[in-house]
Amino acid sequence: MTVAKKMQEFADNSSWIRKMFERGAGMKAEFGAENVFDFSLGNPDVAPPKKFFEVLADLVEGDTPGMHAYMPNGGYHYVREAVATQLSKEQGAEIGMGDVLMTCGAAGALNVVMKSLLNPDDEVIILSPFFVEYHFYVDNHGGAVKIVPTDDEFQFDLAAIEEALTEKTKAILINSPNNPTGQMYSAESLAALGALLDSTGEKFCTTIYLISDEPYRKIVFDGAKAPSIMATTTNSIVVSSYSKDLSLPGERIGYIAVHPEMHEKDLLLNAMTLANRILGFVNAPALMQRAVAELQEESVDASIYEQRREVFCKVLDEAGLEYVLPKGAFYLFPKTPIADDVEFCRLLQEEKILAVPGRGFGTPGHIRLAFCVDAEVIAKSADGFKRAVAKAKGK
Amino acid sequence: MTVAKKMQEFADNSSWIRKMFERGAGMKAEFGAENVFDFSLGNPDVAPPKKFFEVLADLVEGDTPGMHAYMPNGGYHYVREAVATQLSKEQGAEIGMGDVLMTCGAAGALNVVMKSLLNPDDEVIILSPFFVEYHFYVDNHGGAVKIVPTDDEFQFDLAAIEEALTEKTKAILINSPNNPTGQMYSAESLAALGALLDSTGEKFCTTIYLISDEPYRKIVFDGAKAPSIMATTTNSIVVSSYSKDLSLPGERIGYIAVHPEMHEKDLLLNAMTLANRILGFVNAPALMQRAVAELQEESVDASIYEQRREVFCKVLDEAGLEYVLPKGAFYLFPKTPIADDVEFCRLLQEEKILAVPGRGFGTPGHIRLAFCVDAEVIAKSADGFKRAVAKAKGK
Repeated sequence: MTVAKKMQEFADNSSWIRKMFERGAGMKAEFGAENVFDFSLGNPDVAPPKKFFEVLADLVEGDTPGMHAYMPNGGYHYVREAVATQLSKEQGAEIGMGDVLMTCGAAGALNVVMKSLLNPDDEVIILSPFFVEYHFYVDNHGGAVKIVPTDDEFQFDLAAIEEALTEKTKAILINSPNNPTGQMYSAESLAALGALLDSTGEKFCTTIYLISDEPYRKIVFDGAKAPSIMATTTNSIVVSSYSKDLSLPGERIGYIAVHPEMHEKDLLLNAMTLANRILGFVNAPALMQRAVAELQEESVDASIYEQRREVFCKVLDEAGLEYVLPKGAFYLFPKTPIADDVEFCRLLQEEKILAVPGRGFGTPGHIRLAFCVDAEVIAKSADGFKRAVAKAKGK
Repeated sequence: MTVAKKMQEFADNSSWIRKMFERGAGMKAEFGAENVFDFSLGNPDVAPPKKFFEVLADLVEGDTPGMHAYMPNGGYHYVREAVATQLSKEQGAEIGMGDVLMTCGAAGALNVVMKSLLNPDDEVIILSPFFVEYHFYVDNHGGAVKIVPTDDEFQFDLAAIEEALTEKTKAILINSPNNPTGQMYSAESLAALGALLDSTGEKFCTTIYLISDEPYRKIVFDGAKAPSIMATTTNSIVVSSYSKDLSLPGERIGYIAVHPEMHEKDLLLNAMTLANRILGFVNAPALMQRAVAELQEESVDASIYEQRREVFCKVLDEAGLEYVLPKGAFYLFPKTPIADDVEFCRLLQEEKILAVPGRGFGTPGHIRLAFCVDAEVIAKSADGFKRAVAKAKGK
């Protein structure tokens, strides 16, 4: 075999998910995309805010020499300044330009953080259900993932986390609002988590970082507000992107921010700047950096996703599927009526409904439904859901 | 220490180069940027072609839903088709859409290739003088670099390469036109290299890939043409970017192309598509993909760099510095009049001339001079070079 053994294994292991996607693509080709209910992809379909197009047109029109040239690996200073100003409001901390690095999306950001932190076999705790790529981001840089399940409401279990912490724990990676569950952690539980990490780090004479991946921060429902991570511990790192709140996932623009009072902060910032370069990102895309600098207060209209949630919940209620009401993001993670989530996905496919089996997120017996499609499409899928559930129960 | 030990070492080891850059920045602040002769950075200052701005404005004006959304990890099909068509002409091979992956620049591309190919401790041969980041790209993915020096003309030494090949050799990474030397390999010597890799692979029952990093392909002088890599062996991989020929380094847009007749090609393409995703690039920036699709025939005017080369050679001749005439790219790599290249850089700095010591490229006793500055600035540096050489010889 010519390719790396590990990559070959990864490709083989993920092939059953890919096959599902391929089957979906085949289905769209056969029946027409408009006749397939595709809830499988978290690809935002809500258009970017109007101001994005205005800013982009202005930037392109006012193009000046050097606007597409290299800049410092961490990003333009004025862009980082703009991000720091907005973040200071969101996090309730005095974040400076130097505490922020612009990155190639949140995925790029997480790779940079892991590369900078992990010694061989250092452990990173992630909570299930999890975004499956987290495993790769840790493994890419020689770390080991330790999975801790969440409770029935998909909230974290502090005692279980405490039990999982060891001398080798370098970080816990959380994602709130969460993909795939749509759940959010409260300020109180986050405070308790921060305190636990600090006291455990003290006990082991280590530092345990709280890494918060929060691209859905601005997509929250019922008038809620995502709590500050930086209020929980000085060993906190926020990673985010403009993929979801500005609907720009293809443009790969995001950032890392470290707690302004973090111990040995400059060491970490230097390492991350170097990692951004040597991992091949070099810098976040120049034009999009300039664009997001002017869009710090902007976001897609979260109420569009909230309305879709209502419609989807009605569909699931009528089909008799159980779920925990999402507090943000654009995912539902209902229980399947039979234990075999892959089989249930197959039954849904017979109804031209595409969903991802929960085992893809480390939690079998569930499916992930992304509401990145029109409310009308969601409503039309109702009968298909009912029939699939009936078939499942009839088995 | 909280950051990864390896990253801390990297940061420490590269700090003397960084200090030089910092000193340069300090110098510009003190004397004004226009009074400092900065030849240290390979940051193209020639503006992108006029058509780039037209295409970009058209794309932004004609923006349609989903234009900034996720697309296949390897890039838009029509973009890859456009790249494949142009590459087929350049490489004299029938390259299809499926043989091409769009990437976050050539640096991203090389990380993707290394991640896809390397098992732990697999060896990658690079030639000195080398682009220093190559070490990181190999090390990031668990590989080991083996350095083979080039000859006095900076051409590769086939016998030395043959001696360096082992059962663990996974690839040789070449860069032509070359950074830092400006040299280019001939079609004949490349053919001999391809044949050597093929026969050695056969002997060891392995595959040895020829990876060609060629972002300077279109910046060649004296009416020359960069030869085809794909003519040399079916185990060839071309990596490139639009950073230099379209002067867009900050936008991070490049590609990988594999030989259309490569053995187990699909395995490698699958692995690279997965690597592009899990390393956190996810995909190449969407808008810039669309832009370069329409700019396949475009390039900055290489004659601007060629004119600067003439001016710079005159400056070096007058100062009595020896060099090999660059055939492409925008670098000169002269010998230093004293063995200690760092000390000679210090003497140049006294004349407000910034250069990078050759040891940064694995070849002490030289300096790298990038001609990414106006010919006038180059001409004005003449007296400074003369004085620095005189001082060096007087020591």
